[in-house]
Amino acid sequence: MTTIKDIANRLGIAVSTVSKGLNGAPDISEDLRQLVLDTAVEMGYKTKKMRKEEHKKLVIFVENMDYEGPDDFGHDLILGFQQMAYRDNWEVKVVPVNSHTQSREKYNTYMLKHGYSGAFAMGFALQDNWMKQIKTTDVPTALLDNYVPLNPHVGYVGTDSYEGIGLAVKRLVDLGHKKIAFLNGSPNSMVSDQRQEAYENSLKDNGLTPDPALTAYGYYVADSARFHVPGMLEAGATAIMCGNDLIASGVLEVCKEKGLKVPEDISVIGFDDVPLAKELTPPLTTIRQDRIELGKCAYFTLNSLMHKVSISKTMLRPQFIERESTANVK
Amino acid sequence: MTTIKDIANRLGIAVSTVSKGLNGAPDISEDLRQLVLDTAVEMGYKTKKMRKEEHKKLVIFVENMDYEGPDDFGHDLILGFQQMAYRDNWEVKVVPVNSHTQSREKYNTYMLKHGYSGAFAMGFALQDNWMKQIKTTDVPTALLDNYVPLNPHVGYVGTDSYEGIGLAVKRLVDLGHKKIAFLNGSPNSMVSDQRQEAYENSLKDNGLTPDPALTAYGYYVADSARFHVPGMLEAGATAIMCGNDLIASGVLEVCKEKGLKVPEDISVIGFDDVPLAKELTPPLTTIRQDRIELGKCAYFTLNSLMHKVSISKTMLRPQFIERESTANVK
Repeated sequence: MTTIKDIANRLGIAVSTVSKGLNGAPDISEDLRQLVLDTAVEMGYKTKKMRKEEHKKLVIFVENMDYEGPDDFGHDLILGFQQMAYRDNWEVKVVPVNSHTQSREKYNTYMLKHGYSGAFAMGFALQDNWMKQIKTTDVPTALLDNYVPLNPHVGYVGTDSYEGIGLAVKRLVDLGHKKIAFLNGSPNSMVSDQRQEAYENSLKDNGLTPDPALTAYGYYVADSARFHVPGMLEAGATAIMCGNDLIASGVLEVCKEKGLKVPEDISVIGFDDVPLAKELTPPLTTIRQDRIELGKCAYFTLNSLMHKVSISKTMLRPQFIERESTANVK
Repeated sequence: MTTIKDIANRLGIAVSTVSKGLNGAPDISEDLRQLVLDTAVEMGYKTKKMRKEEHKKLVIFVENMDYEGPDDFGHDLILGFQQMAYRDNWEVKVVPVNSHTQSREKYNTYMLKHGYSGAFAMGFALQDNWMKQIKTTDVPTALLDNYVPLNPHVGYVGTDSYEGIGLAVKRLVDLGHKKIAFLNGSPNSMVSDQRQEAYENSLKDNGLTPDPALTAYGYYVADSARFHVPGMLEAGATAIMCGNDLIASGVLEVCKEKGLKVPEDISVIGFDDVPLAKELTPPLTTIRQDRIELGKCAYFTLNSLMHKVSISKTMLRPQFIERESTANVK
């Protein structure tokens, strides 16, 4: 079990200072207090008060998403959520689910049985059993990248794909690209549909006409590239935008195999800015979602729903991160 | 100046209990603590700490909007914002502005000169000088019902008009209405455009075709009705939806003058649910925006922006409030 001393060692400060941070003493700065709390969450430290209040429990459900390592997409989302929830003395369980979990038990009864006051659900697909049940649930639920109309107990949290894709297309057009392809992630996902629409509208905003030969839905994995990139190259693509960084890493691989240089012969842009992105060769230009902040927004949304404030959407602005996988058209 | 005793008298509790609430003592309930804080804000009470920290200042700018009385649209928006800001020891100034204020001084220099750390701007029109400057400001700013693309220092707060209008149209269709008119508020307003689009899309979702004779932009005042309602009635309207409750009150008036009974001859629906709505004859069916909650969302958005979390949008769900101004089509 993590102790106050462990936190003090990690931060290189006195045990008494950590204690002040955890207890909200007025004679340390707000910034230091936040740092102590954030580190405590990261290291799994629990205050006496938290150990007593074992009934105050929230859950993060994770499906179709890796989260255990710091490089995984879900990792920082969970961390950001926990950092905020910790301040309000919530215990947060992380529970991976699959279609089996969802067919074995109804969403509402699962929540009730385990005594969870609310949930943050990440990575669910539209056709999931629980997604259907969440449409009418009265259990406060924040959804990552999924929107449920009309239900006042459910809120949506996500990054504004429209702005991110718009920035990327604009930059490619400024670099002289006219044949801009888009290799999307999985169908049956609201966020894929948003990005598809954003891509097509951004082309039009820049005077370009979407070409069906330059766009495809794949899956959110690197191997998507192997199947779709050859056709896009054949159709004349000089730039390929991707549904996420993993897909982009596959595109870089396929281009290399075909003897094409990135960015000299072809530009490639990812989405998310997972830690992998800057380690690729070349370092990947991408659209950043700040996952720590997104996790914090999820807690804010859930906390509001638990207080009967029906937030339907909270959206975060993306950032366009230009590294070395984009250049002027040849 | 409001004292602790004034708050105790208002709530009918002991002075010591108020003191506990203000100081976050652990032996009173969270609900009571919130009530004490909310009442303190409402009565203008300032803690010693707040009086000391006079440099911690936020501003609420108000344009084109009444806010002084509890019946005014802006009143509860300000109250909700202040209730949240108070918890973080911010002083909040409310400053009415007009085009003269905006031409006399630039937005950024105004903010700097007065030492404001952030602003919540309500009621601004798209063509306002300051709105143009807010597009590129680096001062954290939350905007009610106005969206600025790409600027990471500015966030939008609003109610989801699409859902509200959708609920109202669906209910009218269920009551047998096919000639559903929409008397909108002012042009040059993002929220008017949203509601217009929502109205047209909702008609289509219900198998109806928008008819230009049944829709018009007016202004957000009762007198709009006098000019536009006659034409809508002539075009066969059996129901009139309105851009806000004030416009709806004008529609009720005009119908009465023409010898039409509401809801027997014609149904009328407002937007906002200001206190006036339930006092009208007949009590008005309307789409409710919870302005206290919207004010709280504005503070959350601004607070996030001040902490470098770029929230682009926070949206609240509306509620459909059915009173006595809607009925089956004749």
